Amino acid sequence: MDVLINEGERLEDLQIGGYRLIQNPAAFCFGIDAVLLSDFTRAEPNEIVVDIGTGSGVIPILLAAKGKGSRFVGLEINPTTAEMAQRSVDLNDLQDKINITVGDIKHANDLFKRASIDVVVSNPPYMAKGEGILNAEDSKAAAKHELLCDLEDVISGASDMLKFSGHFYMVHRPHRLADIIVLLRKHKLEPKCLRFVHAYADKEAILVLIEAVRGGKPFVRLKPPLIIYNGDGQYTEEVSKIYWERV
Amino acid sequence: MDVLINEGERLEDLQIGGYRLIQNPAAFCFGIDAVLLSDFTRAEPNEIVVDIGTGSGVIPILLAAKGKGSRFVGLEINPTTAEMAQRSVDLNDLQDKINITVGDIKHANDLFKRASIDVVVSNPPYMAKGEGILNAEDSKAAAKHELLCDLEDVISGASDMLKFSGHFYMVHRPHRLADIIVLLRKHKLEPKCLRFVHAYADKEAILVLIEAVRGGKPFVRLKPPLIIYNGDGQYTEEVSKIYWERV
Repeated sequence: MDVLINEGERLEDLQIGGYRLIQNPAAFCFGIDAVLLSDFTRAEPNEIVVDIGTGSGVIPILLAAKGKGSRFVGLEINPTTAEMAQRSVDLNDLQDKINITVGDIKHANDLFKRASIDVVVSNPPYMAKGEGILNAEDSKAAAKHELLCDLEDVISGASDMLKFSGHFYMVHRPHRLADIIVLLRKHKLEPKCLRFVHAYADKEAILVLIEAVRGGKPFVRLKPPLIIYNGDGQYTEEVSKIYWERV
Repeated sequence: MDVLINEGERLEDLQIGGYRLIQNPAAFCFGIDAVLLSDFTRAEPNEIVVDIGTGSGVIPILLAAKGKGSRFVGLEINPTTAEMAQRSVDLNDLQDKINITVGDIKHANDLFKRASIDVVVSNPPYMAKGEGILNAEDSKAAAKHELLCDLEDVISGASDMLKFSGHFYMVHRPHRLADIIVLLRKHKLEPKCLRFVHAYADKEAILVLIEAVRGGKPFVRLKPPLIIYNGDGQYTEEVSKIYWERV
């Protein structure tokens, strides 16, 4: 399908199944976070997946490319960003699988039937209000800072829409770990599996990948560390595989 | 000082400063957990340190050997174990520094003045009641299972005795991570630094080292993974250093 690429936007080859993505570098570009979260997420071929704060739509497109999940809803609060994501869906002829919806996770119960969704994923803003320096552009700021929704809005919304035993997958910054775990449990999403991502094996973690289960029993599996770079600054074998053999 | 070694006990060279430890293999022997916790713990040379559930007394003896802390209280509920720990203190002429106290952490407020302690450490029983198979011997079972005190007793007791901004260090199993973080925050001990211990770099974590601060602000540092063995089954350089250059 022919779709419009607006001024300032760019087209990225997602390196999997020929899928491409429209991005606006002035707003926000997907990073390794989205790629690692898509790899970490498990979804059966018949499951319905909601991505909270889908942005460019990169996560549902990558999940669709990997055959994880059958149908996807990408929820996005910013109409301009959602319209761009819709063009990426059109570009990849994924209209039957991916539905981009403009909406606010704080109204999850108006958007999704309670306990109706199999899998929820999210790569939410990392920075609490008042933390760090705000980006000048609104959409960039909202992607990085909890301006329009905070961590509890995402977790609470995910919990409401998930079926019992449904799975929630999130990527976040380790410095928020205590907040994340306390809020997950508060909202009946039991943390079941964590994986920390380190740029180098001897450096502190920069990301955490979390799997939680609606109504699960307490028992955390702590996966091997995911190291991005070898000592020589090259991608490790595992990250190379995730990037270049994304299927 | 000459001290008695009872039948069934054995004497272990702690490989640091000539310190030795009396252990009873039929009851419980210290493991890598205690060694790693002593290495992870920070205590200024003038600080008072309490070890909750000191067992053989290995942790205060290692901390004293490393010059971390000035005076130590090793709290132990089992009088027979405490008596053995006292003989190790005597053996090492550490009577001026280490006080072995028989007592129950559930009565922390009778034993320690509120907000009086700089640093609390603990290598508590890992297994919740009803989890795993119980050891036949009582003292071994109590060292591994939450029979005499549970995780919340330890955390609550630590919180009560710690000064504002005082530090709590604990080693535990990663599968309890969500319980640990929820209970720490409930008792105003904010998790500030975590380090996961993996037997091999590509295996799940087997231990977690946690630092929490009484009244601290939420911000977790997630340290590089601590790997015990290289691919060839030898101790990694870091673990070798912790074991053989314990100062």
